[in-house]
Amino acid sequence: MNVSIIGTTGYGGAELLRILKQHPEFKIKSIHSTKEDVPIWNEYPHLYGILDKSLKGIDADQIADQSDIVFLATPSGISGELAESFSGKNIKVIDLSGDLRIPAENYLEWYKHAPANEALVEKAVYGLPEWHHNEIASAEILSNPGCYPTAALLSLAPVVKENLINPDCIVVDAKSGVSGAGRALSRTTSYAEANENLRVYKVNQHQHTPEIEQQLMKWNSALKPITFTTHLLPITRGIMTTSYVQLTKEYTTSQILELYNSVYEKQPFIRIRPENSFPSVKEVAGSNFCDIGVHADSRTGRLTIVSVIDNLMKGAAGQAVQNANIMSGFDETAGLGFVPLYP
Amino acid sequence: MNVSIIGTTGYGGAELLRILKQHPEFKIKSIHSTKEDVPIWNEYPHLYGILDKSLKGIDADQIADQSDIVFLATPSGISGELAESFSGKNIKVIDLSGDLRIPAENYLEWYKHAPANEALVEKAVYGLPEWHHNEIASAEILSNPGCYPTAALLSLAPVVKENLINPDCIVVDAKSGVSGAGRALSRTTSYAEANENLRVYKVNQHQHTPEIEQQLMKWNSALKPITFTTHLLPITRGIMTTSYVQLTKEYTTSQILELYNSVYEKQPFIRIRPENSFPSVKEVAGSNFCDIGVHADSRTGRLTIVSVIDNLMKGAAGQAVQNANIMSGFDETAGLGFVPLYP
Amino acid sequence: MNVSIIGTTGYGGAELLRILKQHPEFKIKSIHSTKEDVPIWNEYPHLYGILDKSLKGIDADQIADQSDIVFLATPSGISGELAESFSGKNIKVIDLSGDLRIPAENYLEWYKHAPANEALVEKAVYGLPEWHHNEIASAEILSNPGCYPTAALLSLAPVVKENLINPDCIVVDAKSGVSGAGRALSRTTSYAEANENLRVYKVNQHQHTPEIEQQLMKWNSALKPITFTTHLLPITRGIMTTSYVQLTKEYTTSQILELYNSVYEKQPFIRIRPENSFPSVKEVAGSNFCDIGVHADSRTGRLTIVSVIDNLMKGAAGQAVQNANIMSGFDETAGLGFVPLYP
Amino acid sequence: MNVSIIGTTGYGGAELLRILKQHPEFKIKSIHSTKEDVPIWNEYPHLYGILDKSLKGIDADQIADQSDIVFLATPSGISGELAESFSGKNIKVIDLSGDLRIPAENYLEWYKHAPANEALVEKAVYGLPEWHHNEIASAEILSNPGCYPTAALLSLAPVVKENLINPDCIVVDAKSGVSGAGRALSRTTSYAEANENLRVYKVNQHQHTPEIEQQLMKWNSALKPITFTTHLLPITRGIMTTSYVQLTKEYTTSQILELYNSVYEKQPFIRIRPENSFPSVKEVAGSNFCDIGVHADSRTGRLTIVSVIDNLMKGAAGQAVQNANIMSGFDETAGLGFVPLYP
Repeated sequence: MNVSIIGTTGYGGAELLRILKQHPEFKIKSIHSTKEDVPIWNEYPHLYGILDKSLKGIDADQIADQSDIVFLATPSGISGELAESFSGKNIKVIDLSGDLRIPAENYLEWYKHAPANEALVEKAVYGLPEWHHNEIASAEILSNPGCYPTAALLSLAPVVKENLINPDCIVVDAKSGVSGAGRALSRTTSYAEANENLRVYKVNQHQHTPEIEQQLMKWNSALKPITFTTHLLPITRGIMTTSYVQLTKEYTTSQILELYNSVYEKQPFIRIRPENSFPSVKEVAGSNFCDIGVHADSRTGRLTIVSVIDNLMKGAAGQAVQNANIMSGFDETAGLGFVPLYP
Repeated sequence: MNVSIIGTTGYGGAELLRILKQHPEFKIKSIHSTKEDVPIWNEYPHLYGILDKSLKGIDADQIADQSDIVFLATPSGISGELAESFSGKNIKVIDLSGDLRIPAENYLEWYKHAPANEALVEKAVYGLPEWHHNEIASAEILSNPGCYPTAALLSLAPVVKENLINPDCIVVDAKSGVSGAGRALSRTTSYAEANENLRVYKVNQHQHTPEIEQQLMKWNSALKPITFTTHLLPITRGIMTTSYVQLTKEYTTSQILELYNSVYEKQPFIRIRPENSFPSVKEVAGSNFCDIGVHADSRTGRLTIVSVIDNLMKGAAGQAVQNANIMSGFDETAGLGFVPLYP
Repeated sequence: MNVSIIGTTGYGGAELLRILKQHPEFKIKSIHSTKEDVPIWNEYPHLYGILDKSLKGIDADQIADQSDIVFLATPSGISGELAESFSGKNIKVIDLSGDLRIPAENYLEWYKHAPANEALVEKAVYGLPEWHHNEIASAEILSNPGCYPTAALLSLAPVVKENLINPDCIVVDAKSGVSGAGRALSRTTSYAEANENLRVYKVNQHQHTPEIEQQLMKWNSALKPITFTTHLLPITRGIMTTSYVQLTKEYTTSQILELYNSVYEKQPFIRIRPENSFPSVKEVAGSNFCDIGVHADSRTGRLTIVSVIDNLMKGAAGQAVQNANIMSGFDETAGLGFVPLYP
Repeated sequence: MNVSIIGTTGYGGAELLRILKQHPEFKIKSIHSTKEDVPIWNEYPHLYGILDKSLKGIDADQIADQSDIVFLATPSGISGELAESFSGKNIKVIDLSGDLRIPAENYLEWYKHAPANEALVEKAVYGLPEWHHNEIASAEILSNPGCYPTAALLSLAPVVKENLINPDCIVVDAKSGVSGAGRALSRTTSYAEANENLRVYKVNQHQHTPEIEQQLMKWNSALKPITFTTHLLPITRGIMTTSYVQLTKEYTTSQILELYNSVYEKQPFIRIRPENSFPSVKEVAGSNFCDIGVHADSRTGRLTIVSVIDNLMKGAAGQAVQNANIMSGFDETAGLGFVPLYP
């Protein structure tokens, strides 16, 4: 099957190239960007001699003619329009941006710019594969979840769905590596200012907040607004969410783990850690895993849930390919068997 | 005034040397360790040509004879015994370890080894200078607060004391640089395993938990056990605590800031950030500042409080010297005017 | 084909697991260490759920019975003895240590401990695949080159063999990430002391010096001792060698590049960069590539040669598998198609 | 004495503020930049509450009226013009840029833009304090040496001046932290691309080359062009130069050290390490020291010289203040007694 990528010069796009280059079923047909006719290795010298393609301009008709799937690795605000340009063109669209994830009114409030076409947003399937396998399988337009929401939702799902927690007191303290901010230059992601530093940003204002809440409320309509905080870590890849919830009654860690294990038993990319073991972000680097550890504290009646992903993999390109596999009828894990790069 | 340091080969000890070498009032009389007769620059080449002293063995009588103050930069379990050996010897003792901070029964539960002499613990003044100035001024034995407790307590004090928050739902999500773990070698603090990583540790089991709770309860007896989580950051210096509390009624961020500003108005080392500004850990590196930023979220009624310190300075050696200044009748800021090293 | 690994708890061993787990031809039969009966994920949590094997003790007969190839990822001093224990046991041995690389008299001088059995050293094939393909193909005992020698030799070979340089003035300034020092704990590789640092070590005394010189002299007997300096970089993976040689007559950069391109034309893991492009270490991270860039300086008549590898891949486990492929008659690149992990 | 700073928003300017804020003799009168009326803490939050000044526009007359010394922490190309605008205005000028360091013809070739006024360049004193104390003492316009040249020249001076080495074979392999590239944003200094990386840049083309050669040739007119290579380290502060020279006859390391010790005996900021000890960059962080270690290799007859500085201190702002001290008749070390920040 032929695939194309738009927005190839960003980190999400580059990671798609890394995965797709080694994928057994997909073939990279063309790569696109606003920079035309530049060999991709000029932008990414690590691809020198590996991928002999040049960036092309964006012509929706031509892309739709030649490819079965197009990945939009473009920023929010641009993806929505691009997705629309592929409407009715017999090509599946997988959008990695936030444009198709939440309704227009929420979008405007949190993203601070105009939302995408409403019908399109409605049509798009929000694709968290562990929970939406069937919808994904038949999707034409897929909205790939955000990096933070992926880590937060996968780790909160069991206790939220099973109603084990107080619905009005969820705190998600999230930490992300710098690549999550994309390849555009900024002061806070410059080396001298990010290194040996930890910075909190968008306190109570991160645009992934409504995305997380929307899905949580689908699982449990009693859910109230959550507290969601984001920190910039001095690492390149990786997200950790440390979530705090109030248990409705006394549970032991091992009871909670039993639930998590049973919920995720068949999921190839979820690894529930045994009692007293917690994942660290490096233990999933370069892979599509989401690792989860929990601890129920009898002193406070609160449960601490730790979840880690590689933000460019399970948090972006890896999950996009996982979705593409499902949409194409392939094994969900095809081309995603990366063992974490450690150390 | 003459001062001596025991436990000079650890990072807290080395930081005491950096401060005291430049201090206008204190003179480093002798430095001590279990390694005898080793020039300090052998252990710390950055001191080559700056401090021409060798490590000596520990003789309490001799130290008490020659010095007015002794700093114990030794590990928990050892400090307590050393402190006792100086009892009645006409020398002020400042202990940087956890040995004199909490009562015996708590100590045993959280530190997992035998507590120090009870009378000594009782006699020791817990010295958070912004809150205990008078007790510190007359202390003979001073227990220097832990790094995490310093950041957490300074940032929680105003809302806890003023009763602005729900006393049974405090979550402190804390992150520390690697130097906080000391100079002893371990796998988790080795470069290849700490770099490009974020690791959660001692989940709901960190020994600083009772220290924080004890002080909070002195300020507000209604306080219930808190949730306290610690993460290991891939940085050398710096702590951030991100704390979550439930406000008892609606407050704006600016109202909360007004409170913080008025509480800390006269404190030279506390910097309350203006609205929409949050401190990052690098902005206090090498200095004795504790910077605090807050945001009240009207969606959830919760307050987010961010606090940063340099764990070796305000979290250890800097605060110890601040206490020594107060105990000696000097200006609290003497020898502590370090401008943060940025970038 | 079945393979076993001894010394699995080190970083070289762990990297072998990462590669072999995904290899199309080799099957990991057993993993060995002095730590017996420990699940490998206890040592390396990133392998949780991926590799369900436990470490076993070392029984040469049993290993030889069950496996076609054994990888020795053990330290120098131990590998030699292990290699000997497999003598005559109908199993191919690939040793990643320095034990079989240089003659006894050199070994003692540079390694400062007793060398391995001389006959074994003589029998072992030094396996730099780009230069020793045929010897490797028929080897029974293979000595895998050191990390620094791999980067240095591959980048110096063309000008040394073709006699383009002054044979008595070669300077190799080498820089390595911390994983090159192995997983044993040490002060210089602890996070707080390696981070934000650059350290020079073993100045003119690194044990890889005779290994480099020996091979260079095989290519050009006029070669004189070289100057070789090693630095510890604050990164986990990656080596760069910056080499300086005096050209015997005036050459342009493009003439030199022509030579390098023709010499390495058919080598799948060597990437010669075009004029004015130089490789950086991150551009080969996680892959088996060795990237080389050169610049001939007309002001000085000197040539600067820059070479980068991932020390755990082309500098250790990757090259070992490349050698195993050749020894087994597989395509040299089997299981080694890793695209560099960037960023 | 009153001092002003132009170009305060760059890292060199910020470091000047850190030093001058704590200086016993100089008072920061005004700070200037193209950004007018912005409080400095907006640009540098670490100065919040420490320095209550706002950036002002640049009015040479006013600055000259109010200040005794002006520091130009502006980029090359701008400094030269600014320096000229202060001509004849009864104010001492210290320029941290490259504009006044080398003659016009060299400047154009290496800097690739128009040089500063020739008379000005000629009048400016090149101020390496360890070697030009007297000229500095009477200078009106001072050209502060570059970061790389400072490390290279201080470490090469003894053997070059004393004619101990072959004058046509000097190789300086230099490595710098990211802050050396300034605060302007660029891809190569963004966190995700600089972290876990080592990059070589401007191979044989760095603009500091002629500055180094010019001074070396003043010391020894037989000197031939040198080879000078620069690498970008994943650290914020620090430079190491590893230099390779050919000794004209056999010298032991201890003989060379004797020379270095005698040459630099009275220099407060030069620390010559004892035999077998080499400095690492972190051992001078935040301080004005230049630490030097050497090793003479009897195998090759070559001498390896390692030199480290903090590029923002001895490589920029620290040395500028050292020069200002000398120009003002103060003790050279006034306000520069920073103990290195370690770890």
